[in-house]
Amino acid sequence: MPLPAALQREMADLLGDAWRTDDSERLAYAYDNSRRLALPDAVALPTTTAQVQALVRACRSHRVPVIARGRGTNTTGAAVPIQAGVVVSFERMDRIVDIAPGDRCAVVQPGVINGDLQTALAAHGLFWPPDPTSAGFSTIGGNLACNAGGPRAVKYGASRDNVLALTAVTGAGELIHCGTRTTKGSTGYDLQRLLVGSEGTLALIVEASLRLTPTPVARRALRAIYRDVDSAARAVARLMAQPVTPSMLEFMDASAVRLAREVGGADLPQSAGALLMIEADGDPAHLADDIDSLRRAASGDGLVALDDAADETARAQLWAARKALSPALRTLAPGKINEDVVVPVSRIPELVQGVQQLSVECGLPIVCFGHAGNGNLHVNLMYDPADGDQATRAAATMSRVFALAVALGGTLSGEHGIGLAKRDFMPTAITAPTLALMRQIKTAFDPDGILNPGKLLPP
Amino acid sequence: MPLPAALQREMADLLGDAWRTDDSERLAYAYDNSRRLALPDAVALPTTTAQVQALVRACRSHRVPVIARGRGTNTTGAAVPIQAGVVVSFERMDRIVDIAPGDRCAVVQPGVINGDLQTALAAHGLFWPPDPTSAGFSTIGGNLACNAGGPRAVKYGASRDNVLALTAVTGAGELIHCGTRTTKGSTGYDLQRLLVGSEGTLALIVEASLRLTPTPVARRALRAIYRDVDSAARAVARLMAQPVTPSMLEFMDASAVRLAREVGGADLPQSAGALLMIEADGDPAHLADDIDSLRRAASGDGLVALDDAADETARAQLWAARKALSPALRTLAPGKINEDVVVPVSRIPELVQGVQQLSVECGLPIVCFGHAGNGNLHVNLMYDPADGDQATRAAATMSRVFALAVALGGTLSGEHGIGLAKRDFMPTAITAPTLALMRQIKTAFDPDGILNPGKLLPP
Repeated sequence: MPLPAALQREMADLLGDAWRTDDSERLAYAYDNSRRLALPDAVALPTTTAQVQALVRACRSHRVPVIARGRGTNTTGAAVPIQAGVVVSFERMDRIVDIAPGDRCAVVQPGVINGDLQTALAAHGLFWPPDPTSAGFSTIGGNLACNAGGPRAVKYGASRDNVLALTAVTGAGELIHCGTRTTKGSTGYDLQRLLVGSEGTLALIVEASLRLTPTPVARRALRAIYRDVDSAARAVARLMAQPVTPSMLEFMDASAVRLAREVGGADLPQSAGALLMIEADGDPAHLADDIDSLRRAASGDGLVALDDAADETARAQLWAARKALSPALRTLAPGKINEDVVVPVSRIPELVQGVQQLSVECGLPIVCFGHAGNGNLHVNLMYDPADGDQATRAAATMSRVFALAVALGGTLSGEHGIGLAKRDFMPTAITAPTLALMRQIKTAFDPDGILNPGKLLPP
Repeated sequence: MPLPAALQREMADLLGDAWRTDDSERLAYAYDNSRRLALPDAVALPTTTAQVQALVRACRSHRVPVIARGRGTNTTGAAVPIQAGVVVSFERMDRIVDIAPGDRCAVVQPGVINGDLQTALAAHGLFWPPDPTSAGFSTIGGNLACNAGGPRAVKYGASRDNVLALTAVTGAGELIHCGTRTTKGSTGYDLQRLLVGSEGTLALIVEASLRLTPTPVARRALRAIYRDVDSAARAVARLMAQPVTPSMLEFMDASAVRLAREVGGADLPQSAGALLMIEADGDPAHLADDIDSLRRAASGDGLVALDDAADETARAQLWAARKALSPALRTLAPGKINEDVVVPVSRIPELVQGVQQLSVECGLPIVCFGHAGNGNLHVNLMYDPADGDQATRAAATMSRVFALAVALGGTLSGEHGIGLAKRDFMPTAITAPTLALMRQIKTAFDPDGILNPGKLLPP
């Protein structure tokens, strides 16, 4: 069903050449990093808040879906226009409006690239903590919509922990102002953190005031190798129970270690049953002490080796093992399901052991690594999508991985979000009354259900 | 209008002696620290979640107000039953359910006293950051309902920043489970932070999973005296723009300094136009360096004196000036309006100068002090409540203080909340579409408007 002619005319008048309906443009905005694809009816590239508001109001009056888009790096299908409609790409609203070092605040438009903001902030000795792998090409608006995290979140928090205020256009076409440019606030309901992670289903963010952190002057890393997952997980709990919070605390299971060694060429012993990358940052004069504290906490039964990276080159070598991992995964099988379940830190051993058991049962390799300090593990199930039987087993196994995470007191996603990929699992993680309330909140923001329909909430 | 007999019977059956309707009990639960007073029809002291849920459902069917209560320490009237109904005091739901050091998490019932939790956590080398002045006798449930902060918030965040999951009973009598016991989560809408600061108007919290922080081993303080507010405020901006985040950063204006000296007997020079109390905490081996960094940032044009507190006794003496303040205020006038507006740190000078101007214009003393690192100042307007003209001028002036804070990009409250005291000012701080959305969210949680009616949202 094509867009109503009246809407087409109104949008062309409003947006001029920033209103695109030709096939090549529609195709360019049809997908995201989930590798799903669905053509929108049109693409809008607004440059002002007023345009966004006018667009949403017009689409609402015609009941046409509106799908907000950063740069499409999300992995859950959250930016794929599965019910067609209008994709609103914020690539032209990419201005850093203000940087206020004394207020530890930056005001940005949603289309600013995370990495570009970090570069601008570095001149002021500040950074914005969320550091997803996509930071070089993902937008702040997309990071906020998905509550993006990254390795640094263990010390500095994810997107939701680092937002002060948002201006947004609701599905009713109303412009709302949520929060203030202050690090404290108790004035009514906290709508800005509610919008973070809502994947464009409640409102379109048109401006964000971000909470900044002074850049640590230096950093140092440790690589700890353990006999087994249990020993590594007990070390994680010890590391998190002492005062020196690591700036990163990354985990690799035995399969990940083997892969990094055999395919990635990393220098890792055969006896490695699990690995932790532990990093501290801060004042250079204190780092030696901090690394000592982390070294003590990392030590204990089951530790096989503990390597210190005395300088930045040695640190980069340590990280090489971790970075060798993602490309190496593809040698196992052409297809990958990568989900980012999260459990309380103390339940990591049960999660990893349970996943290993599931791998045996389904006969497909599963590799676990990720942000141990937050209990946020990336579970990578490898399979051949061309093999229908494997694909079926893969999907069935991932649903058991979700059930396991929930049974361990965790949840479906730590930082990737729900989108389309985990939407149908929401009832396994969220109780029926809570889910019903989420639906009512959706209706309050978006009475006609035009914003990113079919995402986050199950039908 | 007394409670319906059917409700009375049902509640007496449900709660036994934990259902109170005698006058003395009603009076004991009629007030809070706002000094407002309104009698409830009854008081309930539930011991289980099932009782809370049954109570809310019964009250809903009779359209009877339900007012959640911790220990009534809030200053805004948020716990005063202005439309009568049933006060639900959580004093018997005061169990620490679990402390999990490796997960940096504690699970508590809402009636646990903040100070009791801190004592229990200290044994594990952990603390829960919110430290309102009332910590010794206020509850975790109340702290969460009001988004309580305190001096430590500048480094460790307020209540909203330190909650992982909440179980709560909505105004519809539904039991909802919001969030998980994990430090990261991107599974649907963030309802737990929405409940924090909602003052019992959306749901009654029956269990909270709190985010804990390892206790710093040591702390040290500086007292910096400045010629004027401008110099002090510039120092605050410098302090917040460098990497050593102070664990407290408290401000006193010239009136506060004079009061601390003349009435409180604090040893402070005549030339003091403003004062900062600056504290660092952490590893004892690093504190000297950290204090040096803070000392450098505190130094600059307008600095009159900078005193180091080398040990805990010296530190206590520095804090004496700050602590002498609250009792000393009462010597100025018998009545006090204490509001906790918040502005971006860079706007503190304009706030304090504007308030001083308002003090001159209304002919009443106004004393400012508070949490400078968050831009969260307590504006204390002193007057004689028995003098009707003074009372009128006091109220008119405070409304101008609110307008000033909002005009400076700040808001009505940093940590006290809205309650009854600032309810009618909400339209000055929150735009009409945003306020309308807050009302719709209220309706989603509490369709019949029985939860703490008349609070937070203007009629």
